[in-house]
Amino acid sequence: MKTYTTIEWEDGVVRMLDQRLLPDELVYREYRKPAEVAEAIRTMVIRGAPAIGAAAAYGLALAALGSSADTVDELRRELDQAGQVLRQARPTAVNLAWALERIERGLFASEPLSVEEARLYILEEAQAIAVEDVDTNRRMGLNGLSLVPDQARILHHCNTGALATVDYGTALGVIRTAHEHGKQVHVYVDETRPRLQGARLTTWELQQLGIPQTLIVDGASGYMMSKVGIDLCLVGCDRMAANGDTANKIGTFNLALAAHAHGVPFYVVLPLSTVDFTIQSGEEIPIEERPEEEITLVGDCRISPHGVQVANPAFDVTPARYITAIITERGVAYPPFAESLARLRQGQTHETR
Amino acid sequence: MKTYTTIEWEDGVVRMLDQRLLPDELVYREYRKPAEVAEAIRTMVIRGAPAIGAAAAYGLALAALGSSADTVDELRRELDQAGQVLRQARPTAVNLAWALERIERGLFASEPLSVEEARLYILEEAQAIAVEDVDTNRRMGLNGLSLVPDQARILHHCNTGALATVDYGTALGVIRTAHEHGKQVHVYVDETRPRLQGARLTTWELQQLGIPQTLIVDGASGYMMSKVGIDLCLVGCDRMAANGDTANKIGTFNLALAAHAHGVPFYVVLPLSTVDFTIQSGEEIPIEERPEEEITLVGDCRISPHGVQVANPAFDVTPARYITAIITERGVAYPPFAESLARLRQGQTHETR
Repeated sequence: MKTYTTIEWEDGVVRMLDQRLLPDELVYREYRKPAEVAEAIRTMVIRGAPAIGAAAAYGLALAALGSSADTVDELRRELDQAGQVLRQARPTAVNLAWALERIERGLFASEPLSVEEARLYILEEAQAIAVEDVDTNRRMGLNGLSLVPDQARILHHCNTGALATVDYGTALGVIRTAHEHGKQVHVYVDETRPRLQGARLTTWELQQLGIPQTLIVDGASGYMMSKVGIDLCLVGCDRMAANGDTANKIGTFNLALAAHAHGVPFYVVLPLSTVDFTIQSGEEIPIEERPEEEITLVGDCRISPHGVQVANPAFDVTPARYITAIITERGVAYPPFAESLARLRQGQTHETR
Repeated sequence: MKTYTTIEWEDGVVRMLDQRLLPDELVYREYRKPAEVAEAIRTMVIRGAPAIGAAAAYGLALAALGSSADTVDELRRELDQAGQVLRQARPTAVNLAWALERIERGLFASEPLSVEEARLYILEEAQAIAVEDVDTNRRMGLNGLSLVPDQARILHHCNTGALATVDYGTALGVIRTAHEHGKQVHVYVDETRPRLQGARLTTWELQQLGIPQTLIVDGASGYMMSKVGIDLCLVGCDRMAANGDTANKIGTFNLALAAHAHGVPFYVVLPLSTVDFTIQSGEEIPIEERPEEEITLVGDCRISPHGVQVANPAFDVTPARYITAIITERGVAYPPFAESLARLRQGQTHETR
């Protein structure tokens, strides 16, 4: 069924599907150096918090395998350098830093390894991150299943599918699970300006999965809720604060406000690795400002006069009070999220109110 | 200063600036038959409620001048036919029907005229509608002036400027008036998908007026309110019900919800001719569904896979409870709007609470 791979490792090369060219072209690109992977993340060859976490991990593996260090200390210096370059690629999504920290912490936690052992450890850990991501997504899908009624009309923002992860997806994973369990769902797809991840990627994934959909402009979500009727919203997350405040693709906050005004449940779907427990609220999340051409150019078509000033924040922050529940691989968290998320982190699974 | 004319009548020809080509090209098109004018309205060569009201009036004048009727009855039948064609061009904006009714009512209200007198009456009335529109807009600008603080950061949706009217503009007219009175304003311009009237037209008009602006995607309005700070929203209207419910460009409702959540005043600016006093609420306003290519194609660039189902409602309805005040040529109406609008209609001017 699946005819593409978001990201994979093969013989010392990281291969990624260039998502900037979808749905028109299926082009794979190969990367052999961590700086190249960082550039691919920055320019959004690959995007989606879990996917760039895996990409960063593989980027570190490239650094390790390409190193000619003779000592573990020397290797560590090179890894630090590569990690810095990778961390700077995109500031908002926390999975990138999470993946690097997981490897670095594991590497130096125990007895000093040999250089060769260290190299192998990094690659194995990067591959484990990729494999676990898929398993995590399937768990989120199952945990969210009971929140999706049969015949559900679901509003979805951005892309959270296989393309945003190593495979299967987060919010779109919940939709897939519902579909696989025979629930008749219909997805209203926010096109998601400026980069149109909804129009380009989510529609494409839904088509391949055979899930019915209707594409709308982002400004039409309130209208759809009031006129057509929407049963729930499902979105992903790029970084969540410990209190549940959610940084996600620009436009998510407006969607949450529309859902709130209409009494439509608003669910955020994410692995716990996307929760940044070091920050207490969304105020502390850095918001990436991206190039203005992302707004003023669509393909080769310039949509505004030259000389216009543009603001292009890539993300917004939805305050936790607008979120009905948070669907994770360990269960569903309900408000107050500071407590329910902390319980999930400590390993309590299943629903936690 | 002004280097373009939205619509004008000259020697039996209606000339319009083709707004589909702005800001890249300044192309004028000429129309000699009412059906051609109807087509220009339908395909959005001209758009904006007041502008299409004037266009419809001129379309009727073309019908009258092009008629070879020998009797007033015959002329009346031809006008009825032309009026029907013009009315069907776009269903939501009420100014179109309002302008036609104004002419038709005036024409047959008094003693029967000769065919020649009737022709002349229609043309004069169409020209009066165009001239009055500019005067009406300037009055709205002045009536809204006190609601715009100095240093105001204003969020604006779609285009409501000279291009949306015969000249000067409605919501953008209020912004112009504030600017002309020396208030330092900064306009945050919703790009306004799908047709990008904000990105293409409002930015262009503001550039020519020397008013500072920042272009944003529609999904960024909530972010701008929470992070940058917005002092007020100003929008136009395509049809308002007697209770203040406001049909306006798709995305207006989402913007109103974001404003409401942030305590940002939300003002609708419109001539009283845009109020449809025959309907009691927005539920009765027909919402135009436009071609899906408006969403899936940007210029020549296709943004979604083939075969995707699309919903493209051109307008949404903002319930009156989300509107802070309504700025008209006769004064500012405050809630409850059913009463304050009725008072303005009866000729009471100035602020009415």
